[in-house]
Amino acid sequence: MSDLVFGRNPVMEALKSGREVNKVLVAELEGSFLPIVNLAKKRGIPIQQASRRNLDELTERGKHQGVLAYVAPKSYLSVEALLEEAEKKGDQPLLVALDHLEDPHNLGAILRVVDAMGAHGVIITKARSVSLSATVGKTSAGAMEYVPVARVSNLSQTLLQLKKQGLWIAGLEGAAQESIYDLDWKMPLVLVVGAEGEGLSRLIRDNCDFLVHIPMKGQINSLNASVAAAVALYEGARQRWGRS
Amino acid sequence: MSDLVFGRNPVMEALKSGREVNKVLVAELEGSFLPIVNLAKKRGIPIQQASRRNLDELTERGKHQGVLAYVAPKSYLSVEALLEEAEKKGDQPLLVALDHLEDPHNLGAILRVVDAMGAHGVIITKARSVSLSATVGKTSAGAMEYVPVARVSNLSQTLLQLKKQGLWIAGLEGAAQESIYDLDWKMPLVLVVGAEGEGLSRLIRDNCDFLVHIPMKGQINSLNASVAAAVALYEGARQRWGRS
Repeated sequence: MSDLVFGRNPVMEALKSGREVNKVLVAELEGSFLPIVNLAKKRGIPIQQASRRNLDELTERGKHQGVLAYVAPKSYLSVEALLEEAEKKGDQPLLVALDHLEDPHNLGAILRVVDAMGAHGVIITKARSVSLSATVGKTSAGAMEYVPVARVSNLSQTLLQLKKQGLWIAGLEGAAQESIYDLDWKMPLVLVVGAEGEGLSRLIRDNCDFLVHIPMKGQINSLNASVAAAVALYEGARQRWGRS
Repeated sequence: MSDLVFGRNPVMEALKSGREVNKVLVAELEGSFLPIVNLAKKRGIPIQQASRRNLDELTERGKHQGVLAYVAPKSYLSVEALLEEAEKKGDQPLLVALDHLEDPHNLGAILRVVDAMGAHGVIITKARSVSLSATVGKTSAGAMEYVPVARVSNLSQTLLQLKKQGLWIAGLEGAAQESIYDLDWKMPLVLVVGAEGEGLSRLIRDNCDFLVHIPMKGQINSLNASVAAAVALYEGARQRWGRS
């Protein structure tokens, strides 16, 4: 499950084909690199400058010609497709949005949880966020192949759009007044989980209809992002589908 | 937070002092190593033979003199002490027993969950199992310092003993008929979690009063051991302490 494409033609082809490209690395941002840089920009794909030595290492001394692209091992879907997933099952939609989560192991674990508990898909962001990769696939124990994932430029706008379509937005936040048990999980719902250590960003928090916490009574009182997502989502599963 | 002691005298002292030793590595199992080997055996500490080159690497070329001990960065407690923890809080005991869990990241994550949701301690096994270490401490985000951990030679016997003391034993198993929601978590309880990929061992399963599963409705239908423990334990927390 390779997630690297390198060399000018292969990268150009990947960009032209509409294949999902997570990020492009280039040795220079100008000159003969301009066609690639411009096309990546046009498609809204993050571009980063990298030394040739760095590219040598990443490609294990492959013929990279100063350019490399990280390609999603699986295609992203649209947010609409995630909602259709719910409709197909005859369920009210239950989606998970990740607000700039950075650890691929957490994303993998969350995909595994989403597969197991039956939510309809995961929304991730393009910038400053982990994307689908071989590591995520491995940590997901195969769940990446089955869980629909959408990738959006602006999570805040996506949430506003989903609100207009009748979904409620619930953010997971330690300091919230209400708990995951107070929330009615049978509603059409998006659960938003914040970045490791940082929690929800201000803009996202302001967009939430509800903020809910996981009750804690210990000394440390913090959970890993994927464990927190699992505990919250399983409360959703319990309320929606009960005992079996 | 070092968890290595090496050199003949330091290891001998660690063994004599009653300090918690997880494992002893020796270059030879006989000759001048016999006093260390015998003392470790007497204390029921696993002994393993290792090449001098291996010991060089582990100690970063330290003066190991052919012997090295892994020492718990924190002391283990007795199972009785875990029960006293519950009594102090005025709770019915809720313990977690790990049946030969091998991944330190899973143990760290479970300690973090136990701290957060308020169970009274964790029981691990001496052989073929992860023990408290610097890695576990780091993954636990500090929870290792607070969560009482007991380490036993024979988990099956410990469970029988706990049964005699009035606790019920519930094993987490995918194929179980009943679910975590069917279980009455307000009883004095031990939740037993099996090894990654293998689940509960036969002997342990036969000792359980209840077997319970986490409902799953996906394609992969498996959860990481620490995520599974978290989902189950938080159902316990919900039943015991509810919404806050």
